[in-house]
Amino acid sequence: MKRAAVADETELYPPSTAEQAIRRSRQTMRQSTLREVLALASRPGVLSFAVGLPAAELFPAAGLSAAAGHLLAGDRSSLQYGIPYQPLKEQVVELMAMRGVACRTEQVFLTSGAQQGMDLLSHLLVEPGSRVMLEETVYDGLPMAVKKLSPELLTLPTDLDAGIDVDAVEALLAGGAAPAFLYLITDGHNPLGVSLSPAKRQRLADLARHHRMPILEDDAYGFLYYEDSPAPPLRALEAEWVYYLGSFSKILAPSLRAGWLIVPPELVPILAALKHGTDIDTPSFSHRVISAFLASGALPRHLELLRSEYRTRRDAMLAALAARMPGEVRWNRPASGMFLWVELPKRVDTARLVRTAIEEEQVAFSPGEAFTAGGGHHARNCMRLAFANCTPEQIEEGVRRLARVVERALA
Amino acid sequence: MKRAAVADETELYPPSTAEQAIRRSRQTMRQSTLREVLALASRPGVLSFAVGLPAAELFPAAGLSAAAGHLLAGDRSSLQYGIPYQPLKEQVVELMAMRGVACRTEQVFLTSGAQQGMDLLSHLLVEPGSRVMLEETVYDGLPMAVKKLSPELLTLPTDLDAGIDVDAVEALLAGGAAPAFLYLITDGHNPLGVSLSPAKRQRLADLARHHRMPILEDDAYGFLYYEDSPAPPLRALEAEWVYYLGSFSKILAPSLRAGWLIVPPELVPILAALKHGTDIDTPSFSHRVISAFLASGALPRHLELLRSEYRTRRDAMLAALAARMPGEVRWNRPASGMFLWVELPKRVDTARLVRTAIEEEQVAFSPGEAFTAGGGHHARNCMRLAFANCTPEQIEEGVRRLARVVERALA
Repeated sequence: MKRAAVADETELYPPSTAEQAIRRSRQTMRQSTLREVLALASRPGVLSFAVGLPAAELFPAAGLSAAAGHLLAGDRSSLQYGIPYQPLKEQVVELMAMRGVACRTEQVFLTSGAQQGMDLLSHLLVEPGSRVMLEETVYDGLPMAVKKLSPELLTLPTDLDAGIDVDAVEALLAGGAAPAFLYLITDGHNPLGVSLSPAKRQRLADLARHHRMPILEDDAYGFLYYEDSPAPPLRALEAEWVYYLGSFSKILAPSLRAGWLIVPPELVPILAALKHGTDIDTPSFSHRVISAFLASGALPRHLELLRSEYRTRRDAMLAALAARMPGEVRWNRPASGMFLWVELPKRVDTARLVRTAIEEEQVAFSPGEAFTAGGGHHARNCMRLAFANCTPEQIEEGVRRLARVVERALA
Repeated sequence: MKRAAVADETELYPPSTAEQAIRRSRQTMRQSTLREVLALASRPGVLSFAVGLPAAELFPAAGLSAAAGHLLAGDRSSLQYGIPYQPLKEQVVELMAMRGVACRTEQVFLTSGAQQGMDLLSHLLVEPGSRVMLEETVYDGLPMAVKKLSPELLTLPTDLDAGIDVDAVEALLAGGAAPAFLYLITDGHNPLGVSLSPAKRQRLADLARHHRMPILEDDAYGFLYYEDSPAPPLRALEAEWVYYLGSFSKILAPSLRAGWLIVPPELVPILAALKHGTDIDTPSFSHRVISAFLASGALPRHLELLRSEYRTRRDAMLAALAARMPGEVRWNRPASGMFLWVELPKRVDTARLVRTAIEEEQVAFSPGEAFTAGGGHHARNCMRLAFANCTPEQIEEGVRRLARVVERALA
């Protein structure tokens, strides 16, 4: 047993194989200090715009309860092991049609949420030495999913009006970057709130096809739009090289842990084998509860309710920011999703500001650095505000508090 | 872009990075033809001993239904994102006490089933070039969990009376094997039905401690015992180097997807970060339903029911085998679990026999080769019979059919 380079001097023995692996995993998977700050944000009394929670009071609890009770009373197979639930696949095809995407049940792969879709597709596509292309400001779950696979990260800027920099994507691909995949969010970007322009959608679909490079299109927020219905996702423009990730977390309830992928049919058995190794490829009870809820026909009305309520909350936040924030502060107007992106003057470090905000004014947000791929500092003066899980009154009060913190920081 | 060695000659272009990765994943994760056979076993009319299903008619559906309805009516946070559910951790500590294990809530890590526990611990411990130690006849979920990590597999024989060959474990460790971990099932081994002798438990615990090598102790069947209560699991003898995997799938219901780990507390945050990347570390709705069911106090009586019914089924299978099988056939008498292991004369290939059994007699079993680690052929004359999900009448009829198939194969 060779002595490890990382052994503490105080140790009596050289570390065992397991001790070495655990040390390295601890280094790789270390939680950031920002996450500790976000834990503070959940203290009672703190008005939090920090976490991307859907509104609990809008969950369709009665409908889900009826579905669960009915199932348990009449169908014991809903508690047994089994194969992925075919009726839910058919309902996903209908859901996709509402988003302007034509697909077939053989292309549907049921997951326990969009995060599992990212994890399985990463294990499918990322190999030693692979590169992954993603925005420099990105949903933090994607870096978490690929972390243990250690790909090289190729990062891209994002335009707050029109989305990811497609010229930069094109240049990297033309230069032979050959990434394992490109990850993006088409509508209601987390954390930036931006939606891709139709022109960029078409160019990205063309690039994926031309380079035979998968785009992992995360559409967790696509049903939550507040202006006209958005342009269809990339998957509507390119069926072979766009792998679509859907989620029930934001449109029904997160703790049901349910989502789906739309992928070429030949990938489904490979994903099934990967999922078997991960958590057994079984229909969760949740999948059947969701299927029963969808079969009741209640979803379209529920989506209308979510869009109406979340639009009111977004507008309340936009109005409060306009009324309270100092003139040097900038923000965008998201057409979809749950997030709004705020830029403060460059001299402000929001990772420090959030501690002050929680301690002095009992208000919280997510600092921009929580969403930087590859450790960049370009977003250190930014904050993400989540507006879906606060009432308009809480938003008004929270922004009032936040404006006081910002004013003092700029003084 | 370099031309891949695996390119088809018929292709117009060299394969893209993604096409190469997908090909290699397809090779690695290929489903065996045995799995196709097992799919045939689910055809209507086939009496199947092939799949390790718990008995659906014994699921505590009424209790779970009451728990789910109560939760949905009164606690909307049960549908929201959140942190692992602390009351369930406390209940797991009580469950472990029933198994003779003293532990604390800081050592409990909640999973979406034992398979996820294997997956997360594999990602924690297995690195490039690692070795994994396991029995040559093993639960197939473990090889599935480590497959994409490509460790070298060190395989060990198992004694059908007393369990894994501890002399072989000791010799490999003394020779410097230094594996990432050793995986085993203590009671009601899947597929062998064997339980470890108390002497072997003590020696294995001592070896784990001495070599500071984790033992992944899978105890999915430990609560299902049919003789005296079994000796406590390894975790009762060694708290630091035995990582215990528990499951609610066999004692409540599989589709709830819930299980737990007992590990040293310093591993819990690393596992939480790994789980976040995999499927978000959230309390599933299921965890709260299970917690409410456990709080009702119904589990001990439910376990008594399972033990009583499964004992009856095991005894029916033992009696039918004794009455019907030709004299050259051998089998064991499992004290725990859901499986019985049958050895036919060496000249019989059970992977071929199962096709005949399904086609000619409409009876199915799992061929031994479905459970061989590293592609060995030592179990090609064996079959695993699952007895939990058949009534005594079905068992009697199924064994009658199976005996006819075996008789013809030996003729």
